[in-house]
Amino acid sequence: MSKKIGFIGLGIMGMPMARNLLKAGFEVVAYNRTASKAEALAREGARKADSPKELAEECPVVITIVSDTPDVEAVILSKDGVIEGIKPGSVVIDMSTISPRATQDIAACLKEKGVAMLDAPVSGGDVGAIKAMLSIMVGGDAEVFERCRPILEAMGKNIVHVGASGMGQTVKLMNQILLVGCLIGVVEALVFGQKSGADLEKAISAVKGGAAGSWVLSNLGPRIIKRDFKPGFFTDLMQKDLNLVMGAAAEMKLPLPVTSFINQMYYSLQCSDDGKSACSALVKVLERIAGVEVGQPETR
Amino acid sequence: MSKKIGFIGLGIMGMPMARNLLKAGFEVVAYNRTASKAEALAREGARKADSPKELAEECPVVITIVSDTPDVEAVILSKDGVIEGIKPGSVVIDMSTISPRATQDIAACLKEKGVAMLDAPVSGGDVGAIKAMLSIMVGGDAEVFERCRPILEAMGKNIVHVGASGMGQTVKLMNQILLVGCLIGVVEALVFGQKSGADLEKAISAVKGGAAGSWVLSNLGPRIIKRDFKPGFFTDLMQKDLNLVMGAAAEMKLPLPVTSFINQMYYSLQCSDDGKSACSALVKVLERIAGVEVGQPETR
Repeated sequence: MSKKIGFIGLGIMGMPMARNLLKAGFEVVAYNRTASKAEALAREGARKADSPKELAEECPVVITIVSDTPDVEAVILSKDGVIEGIKPGSVVIDMSTISPRATQDIAACLKEKGVAMLDAPVSGGDVGAIKAMLSIMVGGDAEVFERCRPILEAMGKNIVHVGASGMGQTVKLMNQILLVGCLIGVVEALVFGQKSGADLEKAISAVKGGAAGSWVLSNLGPRIIKRDFKPGFFTDLMQKDLNLVMGAAAEMKLPLPVTSFINQMYYSLQCSDDGKSACSALVKVLERIAGVEVGQPETR
Repeated sequence: MSKKIGFIGLGIMGMPMARNLLKAGFEVVAYNRTASKAEALAREGARKADSPKELAEECPVVITIVSDTPDVEAVILSKDGVIEGIKPGSVVIDMSTISPRATQDIAACLKEKGVAMLDAPVSGGDVGAIKAMLSIMVGGDAEVFERCRPILEAMGKNIVHVGASGMGQTVKLMNQILLVGCLIGVVEALVFGQKSGADLEKAISAVKGGAAGSWVLSNLGPRIIKRDFKPGFFTDLMQKDLNLVMGAAAEMKLPLPVTSFINQMYYSLQCSDDGKSACSALVKVLERIAGVEVGQPETR
């Protein structure tokens, strides 16, 4: 496996991931729409490319981690995109969270050029990215996955090949459905407890070790009580991911009543300018309906 | 603390809990509406009482664990009930899951007789009851709780005093809101994954260690995939508990939109005769809407 990696997308996730590749001894060629970020990484040992096409011409492995489906399509398939420069036998690893079906379409376009694609979305947030502790769910050819494993291991910890092309994205979307399920339970339980006059810290410690326990309860529950809504993971990004879920569900003619409702709750958060709050700000929607604030001592 | 305990309610939970008291060296006087169960326990060393009143006359500590709010009111407050026999200075520990407000009312009636009450609902199911591994959430006077701790420790493991009278029930209801939140996420994620053609075992193993992880996902997820709906915890009981949640919420004028919706999904399960299935049978409601069955290999 080549030690030369093209890296496209130096955002809140991509930048620390690219740094971890440098640390692990990979040669990194970076492209970012806002050039200043690529220049910053260049000062840490990367080389800056002027277009995805130019980057792809010299890199047998190209990683993309950008915002949404149209952004991945743009950097890979459009004019001056990866597909115009990349050589047969290369691999594109898309680590963005995007549509499973669009992923399959992009993979098909690349395959025509003799290029393999893995979809490898991540979970674990900016902290996971910085610490190289991301969970990575990978779809695509198993042999290609095994070849690319050392690269993924430089950025993450729990790295699982979950199936064919698109399945990494499908499992990532399952992850988001699971996450908001836990979250809606936590916020409805906390509002219920608050209104009942319960000691919410005690309540969490009494139940978190049992059947009601979850990562969300243990980690976000105490922060909600302290009204700490610093991200973490933006409301805007959560709603983007839930839109992907609902889009994929609609393509399959699958109703998801509760996820759809939670998506609307996130939309209401965005409408009230909470898009940059942590996804746990979901509690605010319920508080507005209920006329009670979690963690306010006067009602305790 | 007296070693003599009155025990009312020898159901799927109460019977093994009473046995654990016997094992721990307590003297148990048992009453059950269906007398044969008290006779069975009598053969294991308990003494059978003919009414809650008779039982209460000789026991300074009385435990009740029956189905629902009216049942607790009946055994404690009605003719031949505990309140007619119990002596001042005694303690009633109600381990049923019932209304927090009714709990406070019953505690007030007992207080007039000089009798203390703890609400101490449990979680952990029949297996937890058998293994003396129940979680016990306790409301009531802290000093009474400390006096009764050795009794509770004979039946459970994670025993937390969460506040004043009624707060044990409030925290138990929070527990149930949390549980069904996790559960709705799991069933919507599994149906989404199934319809997408994902390998659901792999998907669970890829995500369960991260932010989407929960007890429900790790423990009930694999059983749902195998279509194992043996209880565990009945749909009927879950709906009873969610009715308590919605009743308590209505008393406080608190909307809980998602818990309410899930309660209706459980109601639909009951209407189709799934009341004795495990609470994870919630997936069936979604499957009926979606026209897909989780764990069916033909769609994988």
